Amino acid sequence: MYQGGYTGKILRINLTNQTAKKEDLPFEVAKDFIGGAGFGIKYLFDEVPANTDALGPDNKLIFASGPLSGTNVPCASRMAVTAKSPLTGAVGMGLSGGHFPVELKFAGYDALIIEGKSLDPVYLSIKSGDIKFYSAKKLWGMKTTDTQQIIKNDLNDQNTRIACIGPAGENQIKIAAIINEWRAVGRKGLGAVMGSKNLKAIAVRGNDKIKVADKEKLKEARKVFTAAMKESQVLYPAFAKMGTPMVVDHTCNMGIFPTKNFSATGEYDPIEKIGIQAQTSRSVGKEHCYGCPVGCSQVKLAKTGDYAGIMTEGPEFETIYAFGGATGVEDIDAIIAADRLADEMGFDTISSGVAIAFAMELYEKGILTKKDTDGLELTFGNHEAMMAVLKKMPYREGIGGLLADGTRIAAQKIQKGSQKYAMHVKGLELPAYDVRGAKAHGLNFATAFTGADHCRGYAFQEIFGIPVPREIDRFEVKGKGELTKWNQDIRTATTDAPTMCGFILDMAVVGIAAQNTSSLLEAVTGIAYTPDKVLQAGERINNLARAFNVREGFTRSDDTLPDRLMTQPIPGGASKGHLISKEELQQMLDEYYAARGWDESGTPGCEKLTELGIGYVADQLNPK
Amino acid sequence: MYQGGYTGKILRINLTNQTAKKEDLPFEVAKDFIGGAGFGIKYLFDEVPANTDALGPDNKLIFASGPLSGTNVPCASRMAVTAKSPLTGAVGMGLSGGHFPVELKFAGYDALIIEGKSLDPVYLSIKSGDIKFYSAKKLWGMKTTDTQQIIKNDLNDQNTRIACIGPAGENQIKIAAIINEWRAVGRKGLGAVMGSKNLKAIAVRGNDKIKVADKEKLKEARKVFTAAMKESQVLYPAFAKMGTPMVVDHTCNMGIFPTKNFSATGEYDPIEKIGIQAQTSRSVGKEHCYGCPVGCSQVKLAKTGDYAGIMTEGPEFETIYAFGGATGVEDIDAIIAADRLADEMGFDTISSGVAIAFAMELYEKGILTKKDTDGLELTFGNHEAMMAVLKKMPYREGIGGLLADGTRIAAQKIQKGSQKYAMHVKGLELPAYDVRGAKAHGLNFATAFTGADHCRGYAFQEIFGIPVPREIDRFEVKGKGELTKWNQDIRTATTDAPTMCGFILDMAVVGIAAQNTSSLLEAVTGIAYTPDKVLQAGERINNLARAFNVREGFTRSDDTLPDRLMTQPIPGGASKGHLISKEELQQMLDEYYAARGWDESGTPGCEKLTELGIGYVADQLNPK
Repeated sequence: MYQGGYTGKILRINLTNQTAKKEDLPFEVAKDFIGGAGFGIKYLFDEVPANTDALGPDNKLIFASGPLSGTNVPCASRMAVTAKSPLTGAVGMGLSGGHFPVELKFAGYDALIIEGKSLDPVYLSIKSGDIKFYSAKKLWGMKTTDTQQIIKNDLNDQNTRIACIGPAGENQIKIAAIINEWRAVGRKGLGAVMGSKNLKAIAVRGNDKIKVADKEKLKEARKVFTAAMKESQVLYPAFAKMGTPMVVDHTCNMGIFPTKNFSATGEYDPIEKIGIQAQTSRSVGKEHCYGCPVGCSQVKLAKTGDYAGIMTEGPEFETIYAFGGATGVEDIDAIIAADRLADEMGFDTISSGVAIAFAMELYEKGILTKKDTDGLELTFGNHEAMMAVLKKMPYREGIGGLLADGTRIAAQKIQKGSQKYAMHVKGLELPAYDVRGAKAHGLNFATAFTGADHCRGYAFQEIFGIPVPREIDRFEVKGKGELTKWNQDIRTATTDAPTMCGFILDMAVVGIAAQNTSSLLEAVTGIAYTPDKVLQAGERINNLARAFNVREGFTRSDDTLPDRLMTQPIPGGASKGHLISKEELQQMLDEYYAARGWDESGTPGCEKLTELGIGYVADQLNPK
Repeated sequence: MYQGGYTGKILRINLTNQTAKKEDLPFEVAKDFIGGAGFGIKYLFDEVPANTDALGPDNKLIFASGPLSGTNVPCASRMAVTAKSPLTGAVGMGLSGGHFPVELKFAGYDALIIEGKSLDPVYLSIKSGDIKFYSAKKLWGMKTTDTQQIIKNDLNDQNTRIACIGPAGENQIKIAAIINEWRAVGRKGLGAVMGSKNLKAIAVRGNDKIKVADKEKLKEARKVFTAAMKESQVLYPAFAKMGTPMVVDHTCNMGIFPTKNFSATGEYDPIEKIGIQAQTSRSVGKEHCYGCPVGCSQVKLAKTGDYAGIMTEGPEFETIYAFGGATGVEDIDAIIAADRLADEMGFDTISSGVAIAFAMELYEKGILTKKDTDGLELTFGNHEAMMAVLKKMPYREGIGGLLADGTRIAAQKIQKGSQKYAMHVKGLELPAYDVRGAKAHGLNFATAFTGADHCRGYAFQEIFGIPVPREIDRFEVKGKGELTKWNQDIRTATTDAPTMCGFILDMAVVGIAAQNTSSLLEAVTGIAYTPDKVLQAGERINNLARAFNVREGFTRSDDTLPDRLMTQPIPGGASKGHLISKEELQQMLDEYYAARGWDESGTPGCEKLTELGIGYVADQLNPK
């Protein structure tokens, strides 16, 4: 029931002919897809047909905030950026915080759909209704921090918020990121999509106040929500004080912090060198996304050697894993420097770190030699070599070029049995959890619509022992199918769509997340949500995303894990001896598909889709 | 006659006990010393006694804008920063533009006097009357761009303007700079003074409107001034389009662009490699200081090799000379990278470049060997070696440490006849003009109160052929004494004190500068200036500065030039065969002292000082 509160707007930008069109957000889309990830998936499915070239003009790049973003609800400065991924060929979606998302709302837009391709490099300035295209020919090649500052100066407005690409995105490396401030829409090569469109940056600035349907209701809902946040043992003091790096120690202790390209998990334990104590020794302060009382983001300053004086916002847990654990690099200042380099050049820390770890293992096994590595001694732990490769990557130079499109493509080029060391799902490199000791994570990586993605259905139950919706055993297989469905749906529904910070869900208010989200959304939009409807929206979005992938040809065989995780047990530590066997994976998949109401190939059928109100999708799928 | 318009304020900050005191600017000081450089010299002389340790708590660091700064007079966002220089032991004064100077005025202050020394690193926030000291312990070691961004974020105000130091200033290297945005108070080690006080940064923000005594008069005076600017052939289109780098070609053609540490001027001509065409190929846009219609500052982006993607505001002419001509480095991208590195680490481009050029010549002559250079092949033109030394410099590592306090101190350490290759006056490295072919420049470098400083009495007549106050011959000696006095006084009076951009004077409105300044100052302050009074204020400031130096023990023998320039003629090009012989220098000095009314040791006497209204100074001087 629409009470007249919610009147969303979309800004459609066509780069080919440099036009901007303001459209009403259809009410049904607002209601059924909530916002953020929901809008992204909806427009991607509807407007980017099967077999579209991800780096061609027909791919679309969709920036979408949710209805809570820009209101006084905390932790809601968040956006989903969606396109077909050039790295995976599947749905490419990433989320980012900072200030850009709310600024887009203040400028009057729920979503921004970028279409076409500019002939020459441009950047876009959005000041409420005033949309301008500026030449970015001369900014091409510039690092991301400088790009943002130069554009602020050019527009004579230091409060402009900017999302941009660096050389990596310009050169369309498939692990390129989009950077706003020092935050990243890091994964799935969305920076390359932006680069393929010759779009260097988007500057936004607005002064709108976000309309709220029922201020009293919002006040009440907000009170309940913030009270729930405060009760979290994880957000306060842990995350507020230490941020994500605390998870290094935690996962090391659980024996699931992957080391040396997953060859030495538990056996080689870098906790002292790169864990929370080491990280804290470099911390110089923290940053907050707009409206966030937690401020999990730590700013760090490198102190030693060539790295002295390099500052970064981060590195976050995943980056410490990728540039530290995965590569065996123990030099904390090198990890800080690598994080900053990735932000400046605009590429994904996880994929690039894991790609280098992959090359390190190949080098140690003799599959790559110095001839392939431009003379670098590319052994595990060699931080100078890691930095050297990272510097080459955005420019596709030598070994950097070999790895610049991720491990899957690198393995295809290298051959010689290298595939089995390529730690990816659907082409997306694995995040930090060694899923052999956290099996819901394994199933999630296998089935998430973006590939091996910790941000989709993160199994917080396995990591933080939070008994919601029920207590679970991380080594157990049974029940993980139904659990993973729930995790994926609730995450999408309560954080990625409304849009809210993922940590709110995972760390704090999981038990009452759907209720909270429902109350908040209803208060803001005037749409009569219920917890069930919210959760169902999550399911709807996950199904539509799956449908996109199915339409692209993805099937059950793509819902898999790297061979190593299914054949070699974790070699040491607290999860020693565990793996997810091929049979176990199939068992979990069967259970997961059943919970989802999909057929055994993992295709959503007409009945399920119709139940979710997206029956129109069914005819576009060809189940095998 | 004071008409009540001008009520200046000084903010006195004591870092030792973290106090802030707002004081009235005495009317007599305002009237006689105008502002900027005038205030700096006045407070330095009065409050920093002879033999004060430049890096001790008793030195003072004075930031001063002038009365025109913050008004609608163009090109007036400028400040002088003054302290006793740790590099020269003489007056240390440098000027900078950008936005900080006007912001200081908007915050309500004409000048900021920093005293004492904080126990731990701090930064200062000045928001009108709201003065706060924040710990900067954790920012210690951070580069300057990041420092500024982090402080803006911390203060939650992106419009805050910040002056700060980098690692070079923290480590008190004597060629350390103060950086605001990407602009620098570059020379004389003022960054080291700031570092010695444990002051990482000063953040200013204000909303005051600058009071103007007579708005109608200002309108009229401004109209005359801007009309004069527009008539300049140098400002438009040349400087507006190309900025200072155009002077590379111009001075190369004149045969006075110094190359290879002044050993190859005219003979080795790098015009094609690093001249205006090469510079323009890297230009990506321009920046404007607050209220400047010219925008001479070019932003450049390096394109090749390891330097690709490095952006800098600059390099300006002097930096191209120091990192290019002086070192023989022809790689334009290396020069861009070196400029940015200097800004980030916070050190002077001129002194550091010339110090490296000095070491290169010593290396080529066998006075330094690889044992001294940390294994670097430190030959002229080796840009990798130059970058390697620059990176070591702020941390005093190896060869970087040897050069970090400039050529004079380096030569004292090296001995072995190295002194004669150290291109400095009073410890300050020589700027870009080979004075053997521009003799008023030579006399100015010998006598300027800050050492070899192109910003004091720049002889624009010799470079741009502007026949004001009369036509001159650059190779001629006669008349240069009187000319240099005029150049120094008019520059101080019409740009460094009011405060205005130096280029306005040098490039454009020299013929009517005193008249313009007088009209503008009178309109803004209500003080009844005349052109003569303005010029006399310049003379007063120069005399007081000289008095400071005399009190510190400086005498005629310090008013000299490097031996090479007096004994070896320029080896090639359009100024081939010319030099300033020792006799010529003495002849010019005699004439200069006479024009100044000083005795033959270069000491201002009681009569002169009394004529200038600073007779109180005489008793503090001990003429030899």
